[in-house]
Amino acid sequence: MIDYNKVLSDKVKKVQPSGIRKFFDLLQDMTGAISLGVGEPDFVTPWHIRDAGIYSLEKGFTKYSSNAGLAALRREIAKYLKRRFDLSYDYNTEMIVTVGGSEAIDMAMRALLNPGDEVIVPMPSFVCYPPLAEMTGAKAVLVETRAEDEFKLTSELIRQHITPRTKLIVLPFPNNPTGGTMEKEDYDAIAQIIEGTDIMLLSDEIYAELTYGGHHYSPANHPKLYERTILVNGFSKSHAMTGWRMGYVCGPAPVIAQMIKLHQFAIMCAPTTSQYAALEAMQNGDGDIEMMREEYDGRRKYIVEGLNRIGLPCREPKGAFYAFPDIRPTGLDSDTFCERLLREEKVAVIPGNAFGECGEGFVRCSYASSMHDLEEALIRMERFLNKLRDEGTMKG
Amino acid sequence: MIDYNKVLSDKVKKVQPSGIRKFFDLLQDMTGAISLGVGEPDFVTPWHIRDAGIYSLEKGFTKYSSNAGLAALRREIAKYLKRRFDLSYDYNTEMIVTVGGSEAIDMAMRALLNPGDEVIVPMPSFVCYPPLAEMTGAKAVLVETRAEDEFKLTSELIRQHITPRTKLIVLPFPNNPTGGTMEKEDYDAIAQIIEGTDIMLLSDEIYAELTYGGHHYSPANHPKLYERTILVNGFSKSHAMTGWRMGYVCGPAPVIAQMIKLHQFAIMCAPTTSQYAALEAMQNGDGDIEMMREEYDGRRKYIVEGLNRIGLPCREPKGAFYAFPDIRPTGLDSDTFCERLLREEKVAVIPGNAFGECGEGFVRCSYASSMHDLEEALIRMERFLNKLRDEGTMKG
Repeated sequence: MIDYNKVLSDKVKKVQPSGIRKFFDLLQDMTGAISLGVGEPDFVTPWHIRDAGIYSLEKGFTKYSSNAGLAALRREIAKYLKRRFDLSYDYNTEMIVTVGGSEAIDMAMRALLNPGDEVIVPMPSFVCYPPLAEMTGAKAVLVETRAEDEFKLTSELIRQHITPRTKLIVLPFPNNPTGGTMEKEDYDAIAQIIEGTDIMLLSDEIYAELTYGGHHYSPANHPKLYERTILVNGFSKSHAMTGWRMGYVCGPAPVIAQMIKLHQFAIMCAPTTSQYAALEAMQNGDGDIEMMREEYDGRRKYIVEGLNRIGLPCREPKGAFYAFPDIRPTGLDSDTFCERLLREEKVAVIPGNAFGECGEGFVRCSYASSMHDLEEALIRMERFLNKLRDEGTMKG
Repeated sequence: MIDYNKVLSDKVKKVQPSGIRKFFDLLQDMTGAISLGVGEPDFVTPWHIRDAGIYSLEKGFTKYSSNAGLAALRREIAKYLKRRFDLSYDYNTEMIVTVGGSEAIDMAMRALLNPGDEVIVPMPSFVCYPPLAEMTGAKAVLVETRAEDEFKLTSELIRQHITPRTKLIVLPFPNNPTGGTMEKEDYDAIAQIIEGTDIMLLSDEIYAELTYGGHHYSPANHPKLYERTILVNGFSKSHAMTGWRMGYVCGPAPVIAQMIKLHQFAIMCAPTTSQYAALEAMQNGDGDIEMMREEYDGRRKYIVEGLNRIGLPCREPKGAFYAFPDIRPTGLDSDTFCERLLREEKVAVIPGNAFGECGEGFVRCSYASSMHDLEEALIRMERFLNKLRDEGTMKG
């Protein structure tokens, strides 16, 4: 008999599985449940984008693309980044089309990190950064952001955690799960601290188009940070294209030149049908973005108002599609809150501590759900809170 | 200015880019060229499979699948493996749907290897194994197989290269570029050597369906090797589905449980449209496999006969879709042969040393090309050889 524990990588064994999945497993066997748990748009991909994918299949475009992705697609992505974010990247030497933002993050970590390097990861944040950093042998330095700072990665926090071993700072803004964003002034302060160092920035901007009441600002927009920024973006959230697995990474040519080697050996190329659909999204999809953002914005206001009304304090999220209410008034911890809410009222939300320990006391409610579901979820949550009031755990 | 050389991973800097790409770059600016260079079927994906992808898009199935892949697809893959290769895997605990075979290979390496581990890689073989192994900090032990052994990984070769640090043996059979295959007896001999150790096998069987004049035998078919085999397969070669990026990995549940964590964080899931198409391929695609294999088989016989006739000794490849003739009679090295053949006669083949130094003296000619192209390529190659005879470099 093989001793499987002995044959496995020490690093992979230490990786904790995502705390999000557990709730989906519970959900699966339940009827009549409402899920505010998922991290993806409830919209189907707009028809004209699906149609472009269909057309490419009818034409028989079923072979590999070039490793970096279709040149036509990369050209359109470069135009899109210029048009919508005032960012300039050469499609030929500074860009790779990837299998979603996920692959781009993984490749960036692998292309940059040596064992012993430190990676600053603001928490709470999406679950993939610490395990992917640690798989390279680097150390993920988890930095707790605070609700009172609107969950920004402040220059004070960086100052407290920076060391001579710091190689990379992850910037997951707009943030999943907190909805926090970063402004030019926030990056001014960071630029001051890291000027003169070789510290790189990994900016995961997958929610960039879902910024409300303001314009998304990227560290790549900052004249002092551009040269050290690796920008990750994609089509999943902006164009409701999660299942297509379409992302891209842009950055300095010497870094991209290393990443393409990894991409070539570990992935070959992004899926071809998805690339043709993405090409259409870049050429004729700006209207879809506006339409969906407006819709999310309405839901955002509705759920934030509703959560506060029923007794769960919730700050206004400025980006992404998550509300991150404070559930400490209920007297329950995040896990108990979520499990009871699911079992007793059939509403799925995700415990904040699934996104880092400092998320304890909060829960993530996705508002990428229909208004009908949001309404019904709030009714059920209010009933649940009233029960907790009756039980005496919840005050007020 | 950032010192990019300083910020990059030491391991990624050492990775050599694939030697195959160079020829595609040369090809791009050429008109009237014939390429026997590519490693993908010349067939378009069969219509009924494309149609299933189209239907899924019409229905609006554009969201994430579960991390491991659609349950329906995994069930069908399990049935297919049983039906065609007599292999038994539980679709729920022993299988992950991946982004092509490439991702599966990468995940397997990362899930198993610790720094300092040794990985036996038979050469010549496809270019991805050594760099992916070395990215984990492991050492790729390159083992030269021999034309006179039909490029098998013999037990003698394993005995010569095995050490207490050997963690993994890569088994890339049917082999790209040599066309070599392995039989049950070959695995009997290997089983004897590694019995009692914890050495694992990574069997890349992407060309399994393209086995001629015999039946593919997997190490997972071997009662003594099943528990240590990680099997990689996919749809790219068997169903002409390269661009869809559809593969899968099967293996012992404790290993798959570790791989799924990596897959979840670094990839999320394989593309959804491709999964629906792959489901159709599993349910109704066996006839396509037979049709394409028969076609390849005819071309195989034609090109092997032709190469021998014009003066390039070529053994019969028993699998995949490559002929691997010996070009040493020409007096040229592989690089010079390929560059001159491309420039002077506009035929692209790949130097054997792109697949390992021991491939020097050979070239890879893909016969996944139309009969018309193969005929014309042979005419041009013969003209080229006659020129070399005139120049006096080629004898006979």
